[in-house]
Amino acid sequence: MGDKDKATIIVFSAEIDKVLAAFNIATGAAAMGMEVSMFFTFWGLNVVRKEKQTKGPRGILKKMFGILNRGGADRLKLSKFHMGGIGTWMMKILMRKSMMLSVKEMIGTARSLGVEMIACTTSMEFMGIDKEDLIDEVSRFAGVATYLAMAKESKINLFI
Amino acid sequence: MGDKDKATIIVFSAEIDKVLAAFNIATGAAAMGMEVSMFFTFWGLNVVRKEKQTKGPRGILKKMFGILNRGGADRLKLSKFHMGGIGTWMMKILMRKSMMLSVKEMIGTARSLGVEMIACTTSMEFMGIDKEDLIDEVSRFAGVATYLAMAKESKINLFI
Amino acid sequence: MGDKDKATIIVFSAEIDKVLAAFNIATGAAAMGMEVSMFFTFWGLNVVRKEKQTKGPRGILKKMFGILNRGGADRLKLSKFHMGGIGTWMMKILMRKSMMLSVKEMIGTARSLGVEMIACTTSMEFMGIDKEDLIDEVSRFAGVATYLAMAKESKINLFI
Repeated sequence: MGDKDKATIIVFSAEIDKVLAAFNIATGAAAMGMEVSMFFTFWGLNVVRKEKQTKGPRGILKKMFGILNRGGADRLKLSKFHMGGIGTWMMKILMRKSMMLSVKEMIGTARSLGVEMIACTTSMEFMGIDKEDLIDEVSRFAGVATYLAMAKESKINLFI
Repeated sequence: MGDKDKATIIVFSAEIDKVLAAFNIATGAAAMGMEVSMFFTFWGLNVVRKEKQTKGPRGILKKMFGILNRGGADRLKLSKFHMGGIGTWMMKILMRKSMMLSVKEMIGTARSLGVEMIACTTSMEFMGIDKEDLIDEVSRFAGVATYLAMAKESKINLFI
Repeated sequence: MGDKDKATIIVFSAEIDKVLAAFNIATGAAAMGMEVSMFFTFWGLNVVRKEKQTKGPRGILKKMFGILNRGGADRLKLSKFHMGGIGTWMMKILMRKSMMLSVKEMIGTARSLGVEMIACTTSMEFMGIDKEDLIDEVSRFAGVATYLAMAKESKINLFI
């Protein structure tokens, strides 16, 4: 299993504040020399979706769901104070002011630090998302068995 | 403590998407031979409540709370896109289409795989829920000390 | 590192129900002899903020954010059924009835049991919160590296 300490983070939520927390922990752990995996599942898949979908999902209901549930790191919302976009917009400006990296930049940093970004195949099928709909930083597509095998060996396990 | 790897999941939320994630992880871990405990607390108690309560809680405030906070696995809502029921209804159809098991079936699967379902006694008292209000799949009633004793020995701990 | 079992809890949310769950686990673990750290980050910082701020944050956007995002343990809301305050108010009465401790009392209990309460410096800077804005029970100010060093050695890690 290697001798590095491991951390595994399930990213279930797509709210920008929770996603930033997840990436802060992931990149921090990778910078400290840990082996870090982020497992994007359910709404969390939106974080690693391309803004433009190559083709829509099949079937009317999946299409409806797809319209409601648009992806892309720039579209993430705040878990509180969203207020029709004002809260999220305010936070994006605040973020820049505080020199914090945006989610997109965070994804790049995570990638360059060797954080493994995994997309949950069960959620992908369920939400009608194909491999080509996800950004290239996603290096692996796997289900719960893969997650569990990693989590069992991890010193830090979080569900965000 | 036995020599099986352990996983302990706190189910705090009652939103159907989070509950499904919890059961996916729990049944996956049990299928891999892990010893799995799910600890239902607070809103999570709604997942393991019978649809018909035998008797209501005592006291006006608890009664009011009981009316607002109705239980039963079929009444769970989505954490996003609920939209007065449409989002949840759409997801239930999508779930069927994707051959995913509903929460009720998940509870049965979890039970048959030996997942231990524990109800938090502190939350039960607080919310005015009696033992007979909970489904038979709940095998144990315990407080935070029991949770902690299990969690300490677990390789995977999650709060969902 | 000491030889006590450790538990580390990230308190990201400020909803009263989740905060109470976090303190229940933290004080329970401390009462069992574990070494417990609570890491307050993002909205969770509101739990450990004084009700009266000594001075407001600098800059218009931070000021706006500060007005929206007021702190203090008595101002926390419920994650469900808030209903303009009625749900939260009802729960506060219920809590008293059920002899559960309020968040403020929980903070005192946690402190007396030796639970370490840490404020996340990245979130503080981001939200324009100074050290003097936080209650005295906060014993340490630290970033993600400190969190990770503690979490790596902990038997129980939760993100709440």
